[in-house]
Amino acid sequence: MALPRPLARLVEELTRLPGIGPKTAQRLAFHIVDQPEERVSALAAALVEAREQIRTCSVCCNLTDVDPCRLCTDPQRDGSLVCVVEGPRDVVALERTREYRGRYHVLHGAISPLDGIGPGDLRLKELLDRIRSGEVQEVILATDPDPEGEATAMYLGRLLKPLAVRVTRVARGMPVGGSLEYMDEVTLAKAMEGRREVS
Amino acid sequence: MALPRPLARLVEELTRLPGIGPKTAQRLAFHIVDQPEERVSALAAALVEAREQIRTCSVCCNLTDVDPCRLCTDPQRDGSLVCVVEGPRDVVALERTREYRGRYHVLHGAISPLDGIGPGDLRLKELLDRIRSGEVQEVILATDPDPEGEATAMYLGRLLKPLAVRVTRVARGMPVGGSLEYMDEVTLAKAMEGRREVS
Repeated sequence: MALPRPLARLVEELTRLPGIGPKTAQRLAFHIVDQPEERVSALAAALVEAREQIRTCSVCCNLTDVDPCRLCTDPQRDGSLVCVVEGPRDVVALERTREYRGRYHVLHGAISPLDGIGPGDLRLKELLDRIRSGEVQEVILATDPDPEGEATAMYLGRLLKPLAVRVTRVARGMPVGGSLEYMDEVTLAKAMEGRREVS
Repeated sequence: MALPRPLARLVEELTRLPGIGPKTAQRLAFHIVDQPEERVSALAAALVEAREQIRTCSVCCNLTDVDPCRLCTDPQRDGSLVCVVEGPRDVVALERTREYRGRYHVLHGAISPLDGIGPGDLRLKELLDRIRSGEVQEVILATDPDPEGEATAMYLGRLLKPLAVRVTRVARGMPVGGSLEYMDEVTLAKAMEGRREVS
């Protein structure tokens, strides 16, 4: 049966979202038309307002509703440290650790020749501007430990070499709580290679 | 880290949807702010329009954007047959079979004393009006084969007894493609009880 048109359109729009298949979209659509009108308006307004008000910070390129963002203007954070990540969700993950108190730089991608993404598609200009301004002393490369992230880290390492700044890469090794028996060979090799003296 | 306020609000609104947890909501929110503005407006508009335009049909109580709905006004369908289901999604499921060519009646629930849902919470008046109008010859009870659906079917069976109409219940038995070995006892018992002569 063809669904009533407005319902079919809603299902179609919901199906465009990542991880939402036709069945989930239909379940959500039937739920939505069963909700009070003000709840649906609140969701619609939240969608439009988030899209309108969220932009990238002109300093660190993270998502923000004020420019520069709160992380860039927080006087409690160490401006000499910049942690470079692929996306805004990586910032959320790192902040969750409550360990890191420096600043960030969000590249909005990683180098991936297969997907046609080169260095020109990353937010590099802003990073170079910050380093040239002189405050930054260490750049921590925290791109993913996958081929794209490694390629990006390698590229950045070379790019930043001529600048008077320390460049480091986050450690690769066994994830805490992991089991050596089931670890893949590459991770194990990296863990052996990065071994440290027991103090 | 606190997300920027408009993003946090979007995550909160998305989390209210059924089956969307905080992690999925965050993934969706970051995806949404990364979409072109017109895509987000289209989704927001689809939400509001579906909620505004979808109502229940005054005849069968199914969801519709025209009243009476297309199923109730389709001259190809047999108005002497009414299939009673719990919700609009059951209509979609039955229509998918392309077997049934009668009409429907949607109760919008099932009797469930534990959840405080009694016969007064179901759309029964419209069903009785239709039967009294004289066209209906058979009412097929297609509520779920669970305790609430069975209670509802039993209640309807008694309610409709005084009226000059045939009342039937959909067959309970082994689902096609199921394996007898793994079938639960109640289904097996129903399948035995409902056995038919091999022709």
